[in-house]
Amino acid sequence: MSTDTLALDINSDVGESYGAFRIGADVELFPLISSANVACGFHGGDPQTMDQTVRALAGLGVAVGAHPSYHDLRGFGRRNIPATPEEIRTDLLYQIGALHAFCQVAGVPLHHVKPHGALYNTATNDRIIADAIVNAVLDLAPDVIFYALPGSELEAAAVAQGLRVAREAFADRAYMSDGTLAPRSLAGAVLEDPASVADRVLRMIGGEEVPTLDGGHITIAADTICIHSDTPGAVPIASALREALMDAGITIRAL
Amino acid sequence: MSTDTLALDINSDVGESYGAFRIGADVELFPLISSANVACGFHGGDPQTMDQTVRALAGLGVAVGAHPSYHDLRGFGRRNIPATPEEIRTDLLYQIGALHAFCQVAGVPLHHVKPHGALYNTATNDRIIADAIVNAVLDLAPDVIFYALPGSELEAAAVAQGLRVAREAFADRAYMSDGTLAPRSLAGAVLEDPASVADRVLRMIGGEEVPTLDGGHITIAADTICIHSDTPGAVPIASALREALMDAGITIRAL
Amino acid sequence: MSTDTLALDINSDVGESYGAFRIGADVELFPLISSANVACGFHGGDPQTMDQTVRALAGLGVAVGAHPSYHDLRGFGRRNIPATPEEIRTDLLYQIGALHAFCQVAGVPLHHVKPHGALYNTATNDRIIADAIVNAVLDLAPDVIFYALPGSELEAAAVAQGLRVAREAFADRAYMSDGTLAPRSLAGAVLEDPASVADRVLRMIGGEEVPTLDGGHITIAADTICIHSDTPGAVPIASALREALMDAGITIRAL
Amino acid sequence: MSTDTLALDINSDVGESYGAFRIGADVELFPLISSANVACGFHGGDPQTMDQTVRALAGLGVAVGAHPSYHDLRGFGRRNIPATPEEIRTDLLYQIGALHAFCQVAGVPLHHVKPHGALYNTATNDRIIADAIVNAVLDLAPDVIFYALPGSELEAAAVAQGLRVAREAFADRAYMSDGTLAPRSLAGAVLEDPASVADRVLRMIGGEEVPTLDGGHITIAADTICIHSDTPGAVPIASALREALMDAGITIRAL
Repeated sequence: MSTDTLALDINSDVGESYGAFRIGADVELFPLISSANVACGFHGGDPQTMDQTVRALAGLGVAVGAHPSYHDLRGFGRRNIPATPEEIRTDLLYQIGALHAFCQVAGVPLHHVKPHGALYNTATNDRIIADAIVNAVLDLAPDVIFYALPGSELEAAAVAQGLRVAREAFADRAYMSDGTLAPRSLAGAVLEDPASVADRVLRMIGGEEVPTLDGGHITIAADTICIHSDTPGAVPIASALREALMDAGITIRAL
Repeated sequence: MSTDTLALDINSDVGESYGAFRIGADVELFPLISSANVACGFHGGDPQTMDQTVRALAGLGVAVGAHPSYHDLRGFGRRNIPATPEEIRTDLLYQIGALHAFCQVAGVPLHHVKPHGALYNTATNDRIIADAIVNAVLDLAPDVIFYALPGSELEAAAVAQGLRVAREAFADRAYMSDGTLAPRSLAGAVLEDPASVADRVLRMIGGEEVPTLDGGHITIAADTICIHSDTPGAVPIASALREALMDAGITIRAL
Repeated sequence: MSTDTLALDINSDVGESYGAFRIGADVELFPLISSANVACGFHGGDPQTMDQTVRALAGLGVAVGAHPSYHDLRGFGRRNIPATPEEIRTDLLYQIGALHAFCQVAGVPLHHVKPHGALYNTATNDRIIADAIVNAVLDLAPDVIFYALPGSELEAAAVAQGLRVAREAFADRAYMSDGTLAPRSLAGAVLEDPASVADRVLRMIGGEEVPTLDGGHITIAADTICIHSDTPGAVPIASALREALMDAGITIRAL
Repeated sequence: MSTDTLALDINSDVGESYGAFRIGADVELFPLISSANVACGFHGGDPQTMDQTVRALAGLGVAVGAHPSYHDLRGFGRRNIPATPEEIRTDLLYQIGALHAFCQVAGVPLHHVKPHGALYNTATNDRIIADAIVNAVLDLAPDVIFYALPGSELEAAAVAQGLRVAREAFADRAYMSDGTLAPRSLAGAVLEDPASVADRVLRMIGGEEVPTLDGGHITIAADTICIHSDTPGAVPIASALREALMDAGITIRAL
C-alpha cells in the first residue's frame, strides 16, 4: 500500500465485557473505526454483549468480524493454552458460528475473522496451529477476509488455502526487526502518544521504514490498522489517526 | 396421531459430555433413534464433542437438532437460573448458532430445536420465557421444527408465531393428570422396564389413555418420543420401543 | 447505637476483580474503611486478587472478612441461583475456607463473614437459606462476626445459633418502610450525594428517623455501615462520611 | 523401603466428580486404600462432592489429602496451563484452604498434599513451579506430608524446604529408564492386569528392579503407591494389590 492508496481500514477488538465486568472503550471507539473484531465468549463477550455490540456496529456501518480465542476467560485469552489442532479447529467453529448468528439477526454479513491474543501470537510462528485456525474458517466461512500479521505462518497458511487475507499492522505497538510485535513486557512496547502514532502509521502505509524497538528499521505492509480498545489512550489515538488519514486524503473504510 | 400412522420419530438428548467428563450412552443409542438433540456447550457439550457428535449422527442419517440450555454447567441445565427474556433470547442465538456451524461443516441441515432441562420445564408454564425462546428460533432458524410438550406455553408460543411444532411425549417418564411430567423426585416418575415402556408408547400413539402418577388417566398426543440418554436403561428401552414400533408396522423416522 | 457512641465500622465489598476484568475502586477505598468483605472466587475474585487484597488490607490494619456468594461469575452473584441448603452450606465452607487460607498466610484473623448480593438478599426473607449460611459459619468459624440486615431472617438465624452479629446499614442505598433495601431498579434507590449520605448516616446512628423511598420514615440500627465499592461515587462518599463521623467525635474502627 | 517394612500406603485420586458429571469408582475404592487425594474444585470436585467425599473418607479412617490442580475443568487438569509462580502459589492456597475447611468440619486433619495431573508432571522437571507449589504448602500447612515422584524437582524442592516427603510410585503405570512415568500416549503405558500389577509393586518395595517401557530396568523407591481411580480396572487392581501386600505381611496404612 502506498500514499496514493485511497482507503485504509481501522480495526479494533470490541465486545469483550462479560456480565458485570466491563472492559474496553467500545462506545467511544465505534464511530472512529471501520471494522470491529467481536469477542465470541471464550475470553470475554457474553451473548447479550455480543448481540448489543453487533447491533450497534451494524447501525453505524462498521464491518463485523469474529474474534475467536482460546477458551480462557480467566486469562482473557492471553495465555497459550495447550490444545490439539482438532480442539482449536472446533473451538473456532463454535465461536464463529455463535457470532454469525448475531450477524444474521442484525442483518449484516460476517465480514472477517481475526484470532485473539495468544492464539494470534502462537499462530504467528506455529504452522500447525495456523492451519487449524485457517481450516475452521475455510470450512465454515470461506468468503470472509482473514486478518493476519504479514510474514507470519498465519498469513502463509491462509494464503496457501486461498483465503482472502488482510495484512494487519498495529498502530499502538512497537515492532522487532523480524516483523513481530515487541512483547508487552518490554519498555516502549506500547505506543501512547496520539500524534506520533498517527505519523508512524502514515509512514507505514507510505512504504517508509519505521524504527524497531531493537534498534533497527522495518517496512510494514498494512491493509488494516489495529487499535487496541483496552489501552487507556485508545480513543485519542484513534481520533488522531483518523484525522491524519483524512488530512492525507485517505478514506477510512473496511476492505 | 393414530395407529394407522406410518411413521414416528424417536429423539434423544446426546453430546452432553464435557472434556474428560463422559455422560450418556451416545454411541449405543445413535443407531436406535431418528433424531437427536445435541448439547450446545451451556449444560454439557464442548466443541469437540459437538463436532464428533454431529458427524456421527450425520453418518447414520439421524436428524440433528440443537438442545440449548440455561448457562449452567455445574447444574447440568437442571436449575431454573434467573434470566431476563433478552438473556434467554441471546443465549439461545449463541448456542443455536454454534451448533449450526457444526451442521454446516458436516453437511447436514439443522433439523430442529428442543430446549433442555429447566429451560424446557420453565417454558412449559411461563409464556414470557416461552416467547423469548421462540423469538430466538424465529430470528435465526424459522424453518426448523420446534419440539415442545403438548398443551404447554412453549407449544402455544411456537404455534402463535408460526413455527412448525412437533409434539413431544416422554417414553421413560410418568405424567401428571394435567399433562406435565411427574417430577423426578417422586417415586415412579422414571419408568425403567423396557417392555412396559414400549407398550405404553404404543398406547399413547394409538390414542389410548395411559395412567398418571396421581391416579388419573390421560391421552398424550405425540409426534416424537423422547428417550433420555443418561438413564441406565436407555439403550434397552430404545431397543424395545424400536422393535415394538416396527412390529406394529410403524416406521421410525424424523419428521 | 446513639450519638454518644464512640466508634462505628465502615465496610466495603472489595477484591471482586477477576483476571483482566477489573472492578471496584479498591485501592482508593482501603484507607477510608475499617473492615472489608473480600470476594471468594464465586462472583469475582481470583486467587491472586484475593491474596493481594488480603495482604493490602492487612498492611493497612483493615479487618478482613469473607464475602461468599452463589456460584455465579457471569451474574456477579446478583442472581438468585436455585440451590439446596446443602449446596449453600458447602459452597460457603469452600469459599470461607479459601479466604481463610489467605488470611493465615497474611497473618491476620478472619474477622467476619458477610454474604454477597443475591445470597444476602434471599436470606433476608428465607429462613432455610439463612440457616444454611449460618450453619456453615458456625461449623467452620464460630468466633467471627456475622454481618446481617437488622430485622432479617439472616439476623434471626445468626442470633438463634449464637453467632455474634453486626447489624449492617447501607449508606448509599434507600430503604423501604419494612426495613428492606429499595430495589436498584427503582429511581432514587442509589444515593450518590456525599454530603447528604454522610448526614443521613449520622442521623441513623443517632437514632433519628430517615425517609424511605415509599414515603415513610424508619429508624435503622447500625453497627457497621456499608459503602459499595462498585458505584462511581464510592470514594467521595466514603471520604465525606469519614470526615463527618470524625467531626462528630466518632472513631471509625472494626468491631 | 524393603520387604521387612511392615507398612505401606495405598493412595488414590478421588472426589473428582462435578455436578451431574460423575467420574471415578470412589465408593468401591474407599475401603481398599489408606489415603486419598481429594479434588479441590479446579479440575473436578464441586463443594458438595468435596464435603461428601471427606466425610466418607473420615468415616472409614482413610487419611485425607488435598489434590490441587491447574484451574482447568475442561481439560481435567491434564493440560499444562501457563501460569506464573505467583498464580500457582495462590491457586494452591485457595484450593488447599477450601479442602481444609471440609476437613475441619469432618473433624479430621489435612494429612497430605499431592498436586494433580499436569501440575504434578510439570513440577517433576521445573524447579520454579515446584518451588511455587512447595511455598504454598509451607505457608499454609507446613506439617502435612507432601507426595512427590522420587528423583523429581518436586521432591527436591520439598526436601530443600523441610517438608516431610512421601515418595510415590504408580502401581498401574509403566516407567521410563529415567524414573519418569511413560506418557499415556505410549502403548503399554497403563498397566491393567491386577495380578501382575500386584507382583510388580511387591518387587518395587522389595528393592528389586522392574522393567521399563523403553527396555531398561529400574528400582523405584516408594512410601506410597498410587492407584488411579478413573481407570476401568482400578478396583480389581486395588483389591489384588491389597491382598498381595497382606499375604506378604505388610500392613496397609497411611504414613
